[in-house]
Amino acid sequence: MTPTQPLNDAPLDLPDDHPYGRHHLPYGAIKVGQEVHLAVRIGDHALDLATAAADTPWAVALSEPQLNSFLELGPQAWSGLRGWLQDALGNPARWGELEPHLHAVEGLTLRLPLHVADYVDFYASEVHASNVGAIFRPDGNALTPNWKHLPIGYHGRSSTIVISGTDIVRPVGQRKAKSDPQPVFGPSIKLDIEAELGFVVGGSTPLGSRVSVDEAVDHLFGVALFNDWSARDIQAWEYVPLGPFLGKSFASSLGAWITPMAALVDARVPLPAQDPEPLPYLQGSTGAMFGLDLTMEVRLNGTVISRPPYAGLYWSPTQMIAHLTVNGASLSSGDLFASGTTSGPEPDQRGSLLELAWDGTEPLTLDDGSTRSFLEDGDTVTITATAPGPGGVTIALAEVSGTIRPALSSPQGAVSAGS
Amino acid sequence: MTPTQPLNDAPLDLPDDHPYGRHHLPYGAIKVGQEVHLAVRIGDHALDLATAAADTPWAVALSEPQLNSFLELGPQAWSGLRGWLQDALGNPARWGELEPHLHAVEGLTLRLPLHVADYVDFYASEVHASNVGAIFRPDGNALTPNWKHLPIGYHGRSSTIVISGTDIVRPVGQRKAKSDPQPVFGPSIKLDIEAELGFVVGGSTPLGSRVSVDEAVDHLFGVALFNDWSARDIQAWEYVPLGPFLGKSFASSLGAWITPMAALVDARVPLPAQDPEPLPYLQGSTGAMFGLDLTMEVRLNGTVISRPPYAGLYWSPTQMIAHLTVNGASLSSGDLFASGTTSGPEPDQRGSLLELAWDGTEPLTLDDGSTRSFLEDGDTVTITATAPGPGGVTIALAEVSGTIRPALSSPQGAVSAGS
Repeated sequence: MTPTQPLNDAPLDLPDDHPYGRHHLPYGAIKVGQEVHLAVRIGDHALDLATAAADTPWAVALSEPQLNSFLELGPQAWSGLRGWLQDALGNPARWGELEPHLHAVEGLTLRLPLHVADYVDFYASEVHASNVGAIFRPDGNALTPNWKHLPIGYHGRSSTIVISGTDIVRPVGQRKAKSDPQPVFGPSIKLDIEAELGFVVGGSTPLGSRVSVDEAVDHLFGVALFNDWSARDIQAWEYVPLGPFLGKSFASSLGAWITPMAALVDARVPLPAQDPEPLPYLQGSTGAMFGLDLTMEVRLNGTVISRPPYAGLYWSPTQMIAHLTVNGASLSSGDLFASGTTSGPEPDQRGSLLELAWDGTEPLTLDDGSTRSFLEDGDTVTITATAPGPGGVTIALAEVSGTIRPALSSPQGAVSAGS
Repeated sequence: MTPTQPLNDAPLDLPDDHPYGRHHLPYGAIKVGQEVHLAVRIGDHALDLATAAADTPWAVALSEPQLNSFLELGPQAWSGLRGWLQDALGNPARWGELEPHLHAVEGLTLRLPLHVADYVDFYASEVHASNVGAIFRPDGNALTPNWKHLPIGYHGRSSTIVISGTDIVRPVGQRKAKSDPQPVFGPSIKLDIEAELGFVVGGSTPLGSRVSVDEAVDHLFGVALFNDWSARDIQAWEYVPLGPFLGKSFASSLGAWITPMAALVDARVPLPAQDPEPLPYLQGSTGAMFGLDLTMEVRLNGTVISRPPYAGLYWSPTQMIAHLTVNGASLSSGDLFASGTTSGPEPDQRGSLLELAWDGTEPLTLDDGSTRSFLEDGDTVTITATAPGPGGVTIALAEVSGTIRPALSSPQGAVSAGS
């Protein structure tokens, strides 16, 4: 991320292969004085859209502090703004128009660039679902009978989705190991990560209607890396019969910059063969059924512990939307859905510590010689990713990072801080 | 609901025992021209708060079309406005101040009076959980091992919560009976109701903090009847391992008027004995641990099919809040949580058709001679409830009602309309 030019000289003179070059153009929200403005990242700068785009057709939506109104404008507006930006960036004579609206990213305060409407977490990696099934339900089939018939998902807590960099307070709750005669209360001792890709939805739909796989393409605005922090001990005790709740709802982290789908057109790859054949409502044209050739890198205190590949996930994001709406549920601009933990077939491609250390039976060794089965207080987890961008360049998704803080004492003072 | 006086004569001259008298004062949102204004129901009228309360300390929050900002002001504001209203209603000399701001409820268009932030559905009736367990998991224990240790809950879809009176389109989706070799796709054939009480939360809390049972009292703004429409066949096939999703997310209906907790002080009743003793974070002072002596009446096309009592539910709403936040999850003003299906111990006190007709094995007979195991297109379900109000009066919660419309044909035209 070293700038190729001094920051104040020609900040828009970026080489074509810059990971935040004009082929990428992710969206964020920046503090400007006491206000929050929408922005586009260009190299090491953020272009203030509230001011730079004030004379464009999308100015009203772009004057808001979050993307939701712009998301509602739909794909023509999204490609319109992108085209306007790329035209200006491709023409050095126009750089002077943009330069007054640039802020160096370093030192900027970033905000979550969308108000998350409804949040759904899917479970689209066959490897992850099989691994978790083998660990949580050793006596049953690893994959539940429904898994290859529908993209399994559940609703999560929208209001606890936080921007990358936010500290994560270790959750407290009930757990009960098989050896515990009664539930035990205290800070989670199995705090985990889930390396996922989050999809931002634009364009609301009416209640009682459905979105087909082909139509879903027009509701996919962009992606960001997502860490669905999970307290495995809390989750294991609570999740039967109504699913994960407090084991997930304490926090999920989203990357600060939303990469538009338009930057990932060359990253689209075919899905793995889907067998049995999905029901017709989960089928679409070839162009609407895709994975993404996107490789994540998960670092724990600097040590790379995994490189999960997103390509190979069983279900297409468009199938997830078609499934989510087949019952008539409406979409809202600002809906966020995540892929579920991205685990590849190799042991060093697993997207959670639960899988990487196989529920504590095979601890990881970090570069400093320490070992980990789950997260300790003070640990920092950072997920990055790269993907092929337009024209053969490589683009870098914005990192999602968080540091674990000790559990708080309870309101009753009954629980010690820390774990 | 016949007015005791001609509408335009002395509309505020209500007898003390009027179900919408000055002891009740529920909150709603009404269309006034092209605008939506907050309102309080008084007898057969709605008092426009945007205009009537324009000189009060809460005028800014009350000028908004939804309650969220007023909810954020907290219990002092809630009791302040209630006191101001009751003072004015108790003093005929002041009726003239209010009368210009009254609208007859008949003919008014109502709107959902809150933007639902996060929505959680609990599962707090031991009878219901036991019945469903016996039906869905006949080979296991009806009650899961965690049930008496924690209030089980899951997040639902906030954006598909609709106001009473909204038609419900029959959902479409996958189901698979044991006898089906493959999943079947089509309109749900097991469309059901769930008679519940919804609780509206006010006062946001920071992420990483917790709300005790005692503190939770101050976050309970009010209640409304809630029908969590459920497609049992879709739910049964999808819900393992991550919980209910499309079987619920197509729609849930909320009563149009939110009854403040202050109107239910005399309806509070002790909880049933909780054995085993809950963990300390689920305990509170006697005043903070309560059920409500509230009896619902469920009508299907006019026939009363059940009278579920809310008293007897195992968990207090304050325990639900304490549980929801024990992991550090924040509250938002506008959060809504529901009790779960309210089923009493008698067969005619069950809150769902699944239980009333025992999964189709004991169909109900309606007054017109027809029978029902689940809902048919055109069916109307209306839930009402009464509770002891302040001073020995009986108050009536606003009904929650909905009519089933036929399923839509799919975007691909592959599914026939209707069921």
